[in-house]
Amino acid sequence: MNNDNPFSFLLPFPEVIPSRIDRHIKRHLSALKGQFFDTQAYDLLLSQQDQLIYEVYEIHRPEVAGELLLGISIVHPGKVGVEFFMTKGHFHTVLDTAEIYYVLKGEGFMVMETPEGNCAIEKLSPGRVLYVPPRWAHRSVCTSRQEDLVTFFAYPANAGHDYGTIEQRGFRKLILENKNGIEIIDNPNWLK
Amino acid sequence: MNNDNPFSFLLPFPEVIPSRIDRHIKRHLSALKGQFFDTQAYDLLLSQQDQLIYEVYEIHRPEVAGELLLGISIVHPGKVGVEFFMTKGHFHTVLDTAEIYYVLKGEGFMVMETPEGNCAIEKLSPGRVLYVPPRWAHRSVCTSRQEDLVTFFAYPANAGHDYGTIEQRGFRKLILENKNGIEIIDNPNWLK
Repeated sequence: MNNDNPFSFLLPFPEVIPSRIDRHIKRHLSALKGQFFDTQAYDLLLSQQDQLIYEVYEIHRPEVAGELLLGISIVHPGKVGVEFFMTKGHFHTVLDTAEIYYVLKGEGFMVMETPEGNCAIEKLSPGRVLYVPPRWAHRSVCTSRQEDLVTFFAYPANAGHDYGTIEQRGFRKLILENKNGIEIIDNPNWLK
Repeated sequence: MNNDNPFSFLLPFPEVIPSRIDRHIKRHLSALKGQFFDTQAYDLLLSQQDQLIYEVYEIHRPEVAGELLLGISIVHPGKVGVEFFMTKGHFHTVLDTAEIYYVLKGEGFMVMETPEGNCAIEKLSPGRVLYVPPRWAHRSVCTSRQEDLVTFFAYPANAGHDYGTIEQRGFRKLILENKNGIEIIDNPNWLK
Protein backbone atom coordinates (compact mmCIF):
# COMPACT_ATOMS: atom_id res chain seq x y z
CA MET A 1 0.00 0.00 0.00
CA ASN A 2 1.24 3.44 -0.92
CA ASN A 3 1.75 5.50 2.26
CA ASP A 4 0.60 8.61 0.45
CA ASN A 5 -2.93 7.41 -0.26
CA PRO A 6 -5.86 7.63 2.11
CA PHE A 7 -6.99 4.29 3.52
CA SER A 8 -9.65 2.99 5.80
CA PHE A 9 -10.24 -0.19 7.76
CA LEU A 10 -12.94 -1.74 9.89
CA LEU A 11 -12.92 -1.70 13.66
CA PRO A 12 -16.06 -3.76 14.13
CA PHE A 13 -18.08 -4.29 17.30
CA PRO A 14 -17.96 -6.46 19.27
CA GLU A 15 -14.89 -8.24 17.85
CA VAL A 16 -12.76 -5.06 17.92
CA ILE A 17 -9.86 -6.64 16.04
CA PRO A 18 -9.06 -4.18 13.24
CA SER A 19 -9.35 -5.48 9.66
CA ARG A 20 -5.96 -3.92 8.91
CA ILE A 21 -2.93 -4.62 11.10
CA ASP A 22 0.65 -3.64 10.32
CA ARG A 23 2.20 -4.74 13.61
CA HIS A 24 0.96 -6.95 16.43
CA ILE A 25 2.82 -6.52 19.72
CA LYS A 26 2.29 -9.06 22.52
CA ARG A 27 3.53 -8.35 26.04
CA HIS A 28 3.77 -11.33 28.34
CA LEU A 29 4.24 -11.31 32.11
CA SER A 30 8.02 -11.70 31.72
CA ALA A 31 8.17 -8.35 29.85
CA LEU A 32 6.78 -6.56 32.92
CA LYS A 33 9.47 -7.65 35.37
CA GLY A 34 9.79 -5.13 38.21
CA GLN A 35 6.50 -3.38 37.39
CA PHE A 36 4.18 -5.19 39.84
CA PHE A 37 4.77 -4.26 43.49
CA ASP A 38 4.32 -7.79 44.93
CA THR A 39 7.47 -9.44 43.59
CA GLN A 40 6.72 -12.76 45.33
CA ALA A 41 3.33 -13.01 43.67
CA TYR A 42 4.97 -12.04 40.36
CA ASP A 43 7.67 -14.73 40.62
CA LEU A 44 5.11 -17.40 41.59
CA LEU A 45 2.79 -16.51 38.70
CA LEU A 46 5.65 -16.42 36.20
CA SER A 47 6.88 -19.85 37.39
CA GLN A 48 3.41 -21.23 36.56
CA GLN A 49 2.98 -19.58 33.13
CA ASP A 50 4.28 -16.60 31.19
CA GLN A 51 0.78 -15.23 30.59
CA LEU A 52 -0.16 -12.77 27.89
CA ILE A 53 -0.92 -9.48 29.71
CA TYR A 54 -1.66 -7.11 26.83
CA GLU A 55 -1.57 -6.74 23.06
CA VAL A 56 -1.31 -3.79 20.69
CA TYR A 57 -2.39 -3.71 17.05
CA GLU A 58 -0.66 -0.86 15.23
CA ILE A 59 -1.10 0.85 11.88
CA HIS A 60 2.21 1.85 10.34
CA ARG A 61 2.81 5.47 9.33
CA PRO A 62 5.98 7.53 8.88
CA GLU A 63 7.14 8.59 12.36
CA VAL A 64 7.28 12.31 11.62
CA ALA A 65 5.43 15.39 12.89
CA GLY A 66 2.09 15.88 11.15
CA GLU A 67 1.38 12.15 10.80
CA LEU A 68 -0.61 10.24 13.42
CA LEU A 69 0.00 6.76 14.82
CA LEU A 70 -3.09 4.77 15.67
CA GLY A 71 -4.13 1.35 16.80
CA ILE A 72 -5.91 -0.82 19.31
CA SER A 73 -4.72 -1.74 22.80
CA ILE A 74 -6.12 -4.82 24.55
CA VAL A 75 -5.34 -5.41 28.23
CA HIS A 76 -6.46 -8.84 29.41
CA PRO A 77 -8.13 -9.38 32.77
CA GLY A 78 -6.13 -10.79 35.68
CA LYS A 79 -4.05 -9.89 38.72
CA VAL A 80 -0.53 -10.28 40.07
CA GLY A 81 -1.36 -10.76 43.75
CA VAL A 82 -3.89 -7.97 44.37
CA GLU A 83 -2.63 -5.73 41.53
CA PHE A 84 -4.52 -5.66 38.24
CA PHE A 85 -2.95 -6.50 34.88
CA MET A 86 -1.71 -3.34 33.14
CA THR A 87 0.48 -2.00 30.35
CA LYS A 88 4.13 -1.07 30.92
CA GLY A 89 3.24 2.59 30.65
CA HIS A 90 5.48 5.26 29.19
CA PHE A 91 6.31 8.89 28.66
CA HIS A 92 6.61 10.10 25.08
CA THR A 93 10.23 10.73 24.08
CA VAL A 94 9.07 14.05 22.63
CA LEU A 95 7.48 14.99 25.95
CA ASP A 96 5.25 17.72 24.51
CA THR A 97 2.96 15.34 22.62
CA ALA A 98 -0.58 14.34 23.59
CA GLU A 99 -2.54 11.11 23.09
CA ILE A 100 -6.24 10.32 22.80
CA TYR A 101 -8.05 7.14 23.74
CA TYR A 102 -11.55 5.97 22.92
CA VAL A 103 -12.75 3.04 25.02
CA LEU A 104 -14.45 0.34 22.95
CA LYS A 105 -14.91 -2.38 25.55
CA GLY A 106 -14.21 -3.26 29.18
CA GLU A 107 -13.52 -1.38 32.40
CA GLY A 108 -10.39 0.04 33.92
CA PHE A 109 -8.31 3.11 34.64
CA MET A 110 -5.66 5.24 32.99
CA VAL A 111 -2.93 6.05 35.52
CA MET A 112 -1.03 9.21 34.60
CA GLU A 113 1.72 11.41 35.99
CA THR A 114 4.04 14.21 34.97
CA PRO A 115 7.79 14.45 35.57
CA GLU A 116 6.97 17.18 38.12
CA GLY A 117 4.89 14.77 40.23
CA ASN A 118 1.31 15.62 39.26
CA CYS A 119 -0.88 12.51 39.30
CA ALA A 120 -4.22 11.80 37.64
CA ILE A 121 -6.38 8.70 37.31
CA GLU A 122 -9.30 8.54 34.90
CA LYS A 123 -11.93 5.83 34.73
CA LEU A 124 -12.15 3.95 31.43
CA SER A 125 -15.47 2.48 30.31
CA PRO A 126 -17.12 1.90 26.92
CA GLY A 127 -17.82 5.13 24.99
CA ARG A 128 -15.45 7.22 27.09
CA VAL A 129 -12.90 9.48 25.34
CA LEU A 130 -9.72 10.30 27.27
CA TYR A 131 -7.31 13.13 26.49
CA VAL A 132 -3.77 12.62 27.78
CA PRO A 133 -2.15 16.06 27.48
CA PRO A 134 1.51 16.56 26.56
CA ARG A 135 3.99 15.63 29.35
CA TRP A 136 1.78 12.97 31.03
CA ALA A 137 3.07 9.39 31.28
CA HIS A 138 0.19 6.92 30.95
CA ARG A 139 -0.61 3.28 31.77
CA SER A 140 -3.85 1.36 31.14
CA VAL A 141 -5.15 -0.93 33.89
CA CYS A 142 -7.87 -3.55 33.28
CA THR A 143 -10.17 -4.00 36.28
CA SER A 144 -12.78 -6.28 34.69
CA ARG A 145 -12.84 -9.80 36.07
CA GLN A 146 -13.46 -11.48 32.73
CA GLU A 147 -13.52 -8.89 29.96
CA ASP A 148 -10.65 -7.32 28.02
CA LEU A 149 -10.08 -3.56 28.24
CA VAL A 150 -10.03 -2.45 24.59
CA THR A 151 -9.11 1.09 23.55
CA PHE A 152 -8.57 2.83 20.23
CA PHE A 153 -5.64 5.26 20.47
CA ALA A 154 -4.00 7.97 18.37
CA TYR A 155 -0.99 10.24 18.95
CA PRO A 156 1.48 12.38 16.98
CA ALA A 157 3.71 10.05 14.96
CA ASN A 158 6.92 11.78 16.06
CA ALA A 159 6.18 11.19 19.79
CA GLY A 160 8.33 8.11 20.41
CA HIS A 161 8.21 5.96 23.56
CA ASP A 162 10.27 6.39 26.71
CA TYR A 163 9.65 3.15 28.65
CA GLY A 164 12.89 3.39 30.65
CA THR A 165 11.86 6.10 33.10
CA ILE A 166 8.79 4.12 34.26
CA GLU A 167 10.71 0.82 34.27
CA GLN A 168 13.23 2.35 36.66
CA ARG A 169 10.97 4.15 39.09
CA GLY A 170 7.41 2.96 38.45
CA PHE A 171 4.25 5.05 38.68
CA ARG A 172 3.42 6.88 41.90
CA LYS A 173 -0.03 5.26 42.12
CA LEU A 174 -1.10 1.61 41.99
CA ILE A 175 -4.54 0.09 41.31
CA LEU A 176 -5.32 -2.90 43.55
CA GLU A 177 -8.27 -5.05 44.49
CA ASN A 178 -8.77 -5.54 48.22
CA LYS A 179 -11.69 -7.06 50.10
CA ASN A 180 -13.53 -3.73 49.94
CA GLY A 181 -13.14 -3.49 46.15
CA ILE A 182 -10.87 -1.46 43.91
CA GLU A 183 -8.36 0.72 45.73
CA ILE A 184 -5.87 3.36 44.55
CA ILE A 185 -2.75 3.47 46.75
CA ASP A 186 0.59 5.24 46.79
CA ASN A 187 3.27 2.98 45.31
CA PRO A 188 5.45 1.90 48.27
CA ASN A 189 8.33 1.11 45.89
CA TRP A 190 8.23 4.36 43.93
CA LEU A 191 11.80 5.52 43.33
CA LYS A 192 12.46 9.24 43.51
CA MET B 1 -10.76 23.32 33.54
CA ASN B 2 -6.99 23.43 33.64
CA ASN B 3 -5.66 22.67 30.15
CA ASP B 4 -2.71 20.84 31.67
CA ASN B 5 -4.74 18.11 33.36
CA PRO B 6 -5.95 14.94 31.69
CA PHE B 7 -9.69 14.77 31.14
CA SER B 8 -12.22 12.37 29.76
CA PHE B 9 -15.76 12.57 28.52
CA LEU B 10 -18.48 10.25 27.32
CA LEU B 11 -19.29 9.64 23.69
CA PRO B 12 -22.24 7.35 24.26
CA PHE B 13 -24.05 5.16 21.76
CA PRO B 14 -26.46 5.69 20.19
CA GLU B 15 -26.89 9.35 21.15
CA VAL B 16 -23.30 10.24 20.10
CA ILE B 17 -23.48 13.76 21.51
CA PRO B 18 -20.34 14.14 23.63
CA SER B 19 -20.82 14.87 27.34
CA ARG B 20 -18.20 17.61 27.05
CA ILE B 21 -18.44 20.31 24.37
CA ASP B 22 -16.30 23.43 24.16
CA ARG B 23 -17.61 24.69 20.84
CA HIS B 24 -20.66 23.84 18.76
CA ILE B 25 -20.45 24.90 15.09
CA LYS B 26 -23.59 24.82 12.93
CA ARG B 27 -23.35 25.17 9.16
CA HIS B 28 -26.56 26.03 7.37
CA LEU B 29 -27.24 25.83 3.64
CA SER B 30 -26.38 29.53 3.22
CA ALA B 31 -22.83 28.86 4.44
CA LEU B 32 -22.26 26.46 1.53
CA LYS B 33 -23.02 28.92 -1.25
CA GLY B 34 -21.23 27.91 -4.48
CA GLN B 35 -20.39 24.41 -3.22
CA PHE B 36 -23.30 22.49 -4.77
CA PHE B 37 -23.09 22.11 -8.55
CA ASP B 38 -26.82 22.65 -9.25
CA THR B 39 -27.11 26.34 -8.43
CA GLN B 40 -30.81 26.51 -9.41
CA ALA B 41 -31.69 23.70 -7.01
CA TYR B 42 -29.55 25.42 -4.34
CA ASP B 43 -31.31 28.78 -4.77
CA LEU B 44 -34.74 27.16 -4.70
CA LEU B 45 -33.99 25.16 -1.54
CA LEU B 46 -32.48 28.20 0.19
CA SER B 47 -35.55 30.29 -0.68
CA GLN B 48 -37.68 27.68 1.13
CA GLN B 49 -35.53 27.27 4.25
CA ASP B 50 -31.92 27.81 5.35
CA GLN B 51 -31.57 24.19 6.50
CA LEU B 52 -28.97 22.91 8.91
CA ILE B 53 -26.56 20.83 6.81
CA TYR B 54 -23.93 19.78 9.37
CA GLU B 55 -22.70 20.37 12.92
CA VAL B 56 -19.37 19.98 14.66
CA TYR B 57 -18.79 19.55 18.39
CA GLU B 58 -15.23 20.49 19.29
CA ILE B 59 -13.03 20.05 22.34
CA HIS B 60 -10.77 23.04 22.89
CA ARG B 61 -7.01 22.54 23.17
CA PRO B 62 -4.05 24.86 22.56
CA GLU B 63 -3.51 25.01 18.79
CA VAL B 64 0.16 24.03 18.88
CA ALA B 65 2.17 21.08 17.57
CA GLY B 66 2.04 18.08 19.92
CA GLU B 67 -1.56 18.75 21.01
CA LEU B 68 -4.51 17.12 19.23
CA LEU B 69 -7.87 18.61 18.32
CA LEU B 70 -10.83 16.28 18.51
CA GLY B 71 -14.57 16.28 18.22
CA ILE B 72 -17.66 14.94 16.54
CA SER B 73 -18.96 15.80 13.06
CA ILE B 74 -22.63 15.27 12.20
CA VAL B 75 -23.76 15.59 8.57
CA HIS B 76 -27.54 15.51 8.24
CA PRO B 77 -29.31 13.58 5.45
CA GLY B 78 -30.66 15.47 2.46
CA LYS B 79 -29.88 16.59 -1.08
CA VAL B 80 -29.51 19.76 -3.11
CA GLY B 81 -31.02 18.57 -6.37
CA VAL B 82 -29.32 15.19 -6.86
CA GLU B 83 -26.23 16.05 -4.77
CA PHE B 84 -26.00 14.81 -1.20
CA PHE B 85 -25.54 17.10 1.82
CA MET B 86 -21.86 17.46 2.69
CA THR B 87 -19.35 19.50 4.67
CA LYS B 88 -17.52 22.49 3.16
CA GLY B 89 -14.33 20.47 3.06
CA HIS B 90 -10.85 21.88 3.52
CA PHE B 91 -7.13 21.53 3.25
CA HIS B 92 -5.12 21.97 6.44
CA THR B 93 -3.24 25.28 6.48
CA VAL B 94 -0.18 23.32 7.61
CA LEU B 95 -0.52 21.00 4.62
CA ASP B 96 1.69 18.25 6.06
CA THR B 97 -0.79 17.22 8.77
CA ALA B 98 -2.99 14.11 8.79
CA GLU B 99 -6.46 13.47 10.24
CA ILE B 100 -8.21 10.35 11.48
CA TYR B 101 -11.93 9.58 11.48
CA TYR B 102 -13.86 6.86 13.26
CA VAL B 103 -17.40 6.39 11.97
CA LEU B 104 -19.95 6.05 14.77
CA LYS B 105 -23.19 6.13 12.81
CA GLY B 106 -24.62 6.49 9.31
CA GLU B 107 -23.39 5.96 5.78
CA GLY B 108 -21.48 8.15 3.36
CA PHE B 109 -18.17 8.92 1.71
CA MET B 110 -15.05 10.93 2.35
CA VAL B 111 -14.06 12.80 -0.81
CA MET B 112 -10.35 13.65 -0.87
CA GLU B 113 -7.80 15.23 -3.19
CA THR B 114 -4.28 16.61 -3.17
CA PRO B 115 -3.08 19.93 -4.62
CA GLU B 116 -1.36 17.83 -7.32
CA GLY B 117 -4.68 16.36 -8.50
CA ASN B 118 -4.74 12.92 -6.90
CA CYS B 119 -8.29 11.93 -5.95
CA ALA B 120 -9.57 9.34 -3.49
CA ILE B 121 -13.01 8.41 -2.20
CA GLU B 122 -13.49 6.14 0.82
CA LYS B 123 -16.76 4.63 2.01
CA LEU B 124 -17.82 5.60 5.53
CA SER B 125 -19.91 3.19 7.59
CA PRO B 126 -20.17 2.41 11.31
CA GLY B 127 -16.97 0.98 12.80
CA ARG B 128 -14.79 2.14 9.91
CA VAL B 129 -11.55 4.02 10.65
CA LEU B 130 -10.27 6.39 7.96
CA TYR B 131 -6.76 7.81 7.71
CA VAL B 132 -6.47 11.06 5.75
CA PRO B 133 -2.72 11.45 5.12
CA PRO B 134 -0.96 14.84 5.12
CA ARG B 135 -1.73 17.01 2.03
CA TRP B 136 -5.22 15.58 1.35
CA ALA B 137 -8.23 17.94 1.37
CA HIS B 138 -11.29 16.14 2.74
CA ARG B 139 -15.08 16.49 2.70
CA SER B 140 -17.70 14.22 4.35
CA VAL B 141 -20.82 13.34 2.37
CA CYS B 142 -23.92 11.80 3.99
CA THR B 143 -25.69 9.32 1.70
CA SER B 144 -28.22 7.93 4.18
CA ARG B 145 -31.81 8.84 3.44
CA GLN B 146 -32.82 9.35 7.05
CA GLU B 147 -29.81 8.88 9.30
CA ASP B 148 -27.07 11.35 10.27
CA LEU B 149 -23.47 10.56 9.32
CA VAL B 150 -21.60 10.83 12.65
CA THR B 151 -17.80 10.66 12.87
CA PHE B 152 -15.28 11.11 15.67
CA PHE B 153 -12.22 12.98 14.38
CA ALA B 154 -8.74 13.92 15.61
CA TYR B 155 -5.87 15.85 14.01
CA PRO B 156 -2.71 17.76 15.00
CA ALA B 157 -3.76 20.93 16.82
CA ASN B 158 -1.46 23.16 14.75
CA ALA B 159 -3.06 22.06 11.44
CA GLY B 160 -5.40 24.99 10.85
CA HIS B 161 -8.15 25.10 8.20
CA ASP B 162 -7.85 26.36 4.64
CA TYR B 163 -11.47 26.56 3.42
CA GLY B 164 -10.73 29.15 0.74
CA THR B 165 -9.07 26.89 -1.83
CA ILE B 166 -12.07 24.53 -1.94
CA GLU B 167 -14.57 27.42 -1.84
CA GLN B 168 -12.94 28.85 -4.94
CA ARG B 169 -12.47 25.77 -7.07
CA GLY B 170 -14.50 22.96 -5.44
CA PHE B 171 -13.55 19.29 -5.30
CA ARG B 172 -12.81 17.38 -8.52
CA LYS B 173 -15.38 14.68 -7.69
CA LEU B 174 -19.07 14.92 -6.74
CA ILE B 175 -21.34 12.36 -5.09
CA LEU B 176 -24.85 12.27 -6.57
CA GLU B 177 -27.93 10.12 -6.46
CA ASN B 178 -29.36 9.22 -9.83
CA LYS B 179 -32.07 6.71 -10.74
CA ASN B 180 -29.48 3.91 -10.71
CA GLY B 181 -28.29 4.80 -7.21
CA ILE B 182 -25.23 6.59 -5.89
CA GLU B 183 -22.87 7.88 -8.55
CA ILE B 184 -19.43 9.50 -8.41
CA ILE B 185 -18.89 12.00 -11.24
CA ASP B 186 -16.28 14.51 -12.31
CA ASN B 187 -17.25 17.99 -11.14
CA PRO B 188 -18.26 19.92 -14.29
CA ASN B 189 -17.61 23.23 -12.51
CA TRP B 190 -14.19 22.36 -11.13
CA LEU B 191 -11.90 25.36 -11.53
CA LYS B 192 -8.30 24.69 -12.46
